[in-house]
Amino acid sequence: MIGRKIFHAFSIFIFVIFSLSAKAQNRNSSFKIVPLGVKGGIDESNLSAYMIAPQGSNSYVCLDAGTLHYGIEKAVENNVFNASAEQVLRRYIKGYLISHSHLDHLAGLIINSPEDTAKNIYALGDCIETFKTQYFTWKSWANFADEGETPQLKKYHYKVLETGAETPLTNTEMQVKAFPLSHSNLTSTAFLVSHNDHYVLYLGDTGPDEVEKSHNLEALWQAVAPLIKGKKLKAIMIEVSFPDEQPDKTLFGHLTPRWLMKEMHQLGGMTGSLAGFKLIVTHVKPPESSIERIKAQLAAENDLKLDLIYPVQGKPINL
Amino acid sequence: MIGRKIFHAFSIFIFVIFSLSAKAQNRNSSFKIVPLGVKGGIDESNLSAYMIAPQGSNSYVCLDAGTLHYGIEKAVENNVFNASAEQVLRRYIKGYLISHSHLDHLAGLIINSPEDTAKNIYALGDCIETFKTQYFTWKSWANFADEGETPQLKKYHYKVLETGAETPLTNTEMQVKAFPLSHSNLTSTAFLVSHNDHYVLYLGDTGPDEVEKSHNLEALWQAVAPLIKGKKLKAIMIEVSFPDEQPDKTLFGHLTPRWLMKEMHQLGGMTGSLAGFKLIVTHVKPPESSIERIKAQLAAENDLKLDLIYPVQGKPINL
Repeated sequence: MIGRKIFHAFSIFIFVIFSLSAKAQNRNSSFKIVPLGVKGGIDESNLSAYMIAPQGSNSYVCLDAGTLHYGIEKAVENNVFNASAEQVLRRYIKGYLISHSHLDHLAGLIINSPEDTAKNIYALGDCIETFKTQYFTWKSWANFADEGETPQLKKYHYKVLETGAETPLTNTEMQVKAFPLSHSNLTSTAFLVSHNDHYVLYLGDTGPDEVEKSHNLEALWQAVAPLIKGKKLKAIMIEVSFPDEQPDKTLFGHLTPRWLMKEMHQLGGMTGSLAGFKLIVTHVKPPESSIERIKAQLAAENDLKLDLIYPVQGKPINL
Repeated sequence: MIGRKIFHAFSIFIFVIFSLSAKAQNRNSSFKIVPLGVKGGIDESNLSAYMIAPQGSNSYVCLDAGTLHYGIEKAVENNVFNASAEQVLRRYIKGYLISHSHLDHLAGLIINSPEDTAKNIYALGDCIETFKTQYFTWKSWANFADEGETPQLKKYHYKVLETGAETPLTNTEMQVKAFPLSHSNLTSTAFLVSHNDHYVLYLGDTGPDEVEKSHNLEALWQAVAPLIKGKKLKAIMIEVSFPDEQPDKTLFGHLTPRWLMKEMHQLGGMTGSLAGFKLIVTHVKPPESSIERIKAQLAAENDLKLDLIYPVQGKPINL
C-alpha cells in the first residue's frame, strides 16, 4: 500500500518535471514546422509544403503548397493540431508563400481552393503572373483570386514580394524577406521567415551557382551569414533532388548531395563552424532507392557536421 | 492419416472448382477497371482516374488522370497487378483519355510525366488546347508533349478526338468514341470504350441537361440505348458531386442524386427496365459526411433498381 503511494507520488513528480522541461524547451524554441509534403516528385500525396508558425501560435503560413489536404490529414492523425483537417486548412493557414510556379509546388493550393477561406498568396512577380495566366483561369480551374481573368471570385489576394524588402505576413506574428534563386528557366525564391529576431530560411528549388551560372546562392549566403553567426537563424530548409550520380547537364536546376555540401562550405567560409547547424533536407525525388542514396551520400559527405534533418509528412519539427 | 488424405484431396478439389469458376467468370466478363482515384475534390491522393482494359489484358488506358502514382501504389499493395508501381505507370498504361481540362482530372498525368513513357493523350480539341497553353508549358512545368511551346520533349502525342468517330486506342485492343458533355463554361467528354462489341461508358464532369440548357445527355442516352437493350453496354460510370441539398444555381456543372436519377429515368424511357444495370458512381465530393449523404439519397431514390457501385481506390471492378 505504502509502496503504491510512493510510486504514485513519484509518477506525478516525473510528470511535472517532464511538463516543465517541455515548456522550457518550447520557450527556447522559436518555430514549429509541420511538413505537409516532403518529396520532389510523382507522389501526388506528398509534394513540397511546410506549415510554419512561431511556437505556441496557431497562425501559420504555408511554404509552398504541393500537397495540402493529405498532409493535413496525416498531421491531424498524429494529434499535431487541436483541430479538424477542415479547420487547419481554413483557420490555421493564414497565407501561402509560393517559391515558383511549377505544379508540384502549388497543386494542393489549387485543388483545395474551393474549401479554403480568404487569404494572401505571397510570391515574386513572375510566379504571381503564372498563377494568373496558367492556374487561376477558367479553362484550368476557376479564378479564386482577385486579379486575372474575369469573373474573379476574390478569395485569394496576390501579394507581390519585392526581393530584399521585409513584408509582414498578414494575420500572423511573422515577416518574410524574399531572395531570388536560379532554377533552370525559372526564377525561384528563398523565403527568410522571421519572428522576434528568430529566423528560418526556406529555399524553393534551386541549382548550384556554378551550374546555373549565377551568384544567387552566394548572395543569399552573404545575407544570412550574420544571422548564423548571431545564432538567430534556426535552420535552413534546402532541396536535394538527385543523388550524386545525376550528371550536371541533367540537373534541371536542382542540387545533389555533393553540390549542396559545396554550397555549405561556401556558407561556412563566411560564418565559421556550421557544426550542429540544422539543415532540413527537402524535395528528395523518388524512387525510394534514390532517396536512400541521397541520405547515405549526405551522411558520408557531411564533414561540416551539419545536423541533417529529413522531414516526415505530418510530423512536426520544433526549432 | 486417411482423414488427412481425404481432407487434402478435398482441398485440391475445392481449389480446382474455384479456379475453374474464376476462369469462367473472367471469360464472361468483358472489362477490368482499376480505380486510381475516385473523389471529386480536395484530397490530392484520390482524384478521378480509372484504368480500363479488356479482361486478361495488361494494356490499359486511363480515363482521366487526377491521381496516378498514389492510386497505382494502392492497387499494387492489393496485388491487383503482377508488376511494380513503376511498371504499371510505364508499361500497363498505354494512353490517357482526358474528359476536360480541370486540374483535378489531369494533375497526376502532369506530376508523373517525368517518369512516364511515350504514349498518346486523347481528348477533344478544346481540352488539348488547354494542355498546350496551361499545363505543358515551361512556366508551369516542362513541355513533355509534341505540340505547343518549344522546346518540345515529345514524350506525349496529342490525339484530338472527333465527336462520334471511332478511334482506335493505340497499343490496346480497345476503341473509343467521344461525346460532348456540358460542364458549366467547359465542354466535357463522355468516352464510350469498346472491345469485341462490349462497351463501357465513362462520363467526365457534367451537369443535368435542364440546368445546363443542353441536350448533350439526351443525345448520349439516345446513342447508347441500343447498346443497353442489346446487353452490350456493361456499365456507365457517371458523376454525382453533391447531395440533393445543393441548389441548382451552385451546381457548377455537376449532378446530384436527384438529377442523376432524373437522367436515368430518361434513359430508361428509351431502353426499358434498367434493373440490375451497373452504374459506377464517380466524383463524389468530400467531406465524408456529404459522401455518405449522396449514398443514402441514391439508395432511397433508386426506384429503377440500378446496381449502384461505389468504386474504391486500388480495388478492381470486373465487368
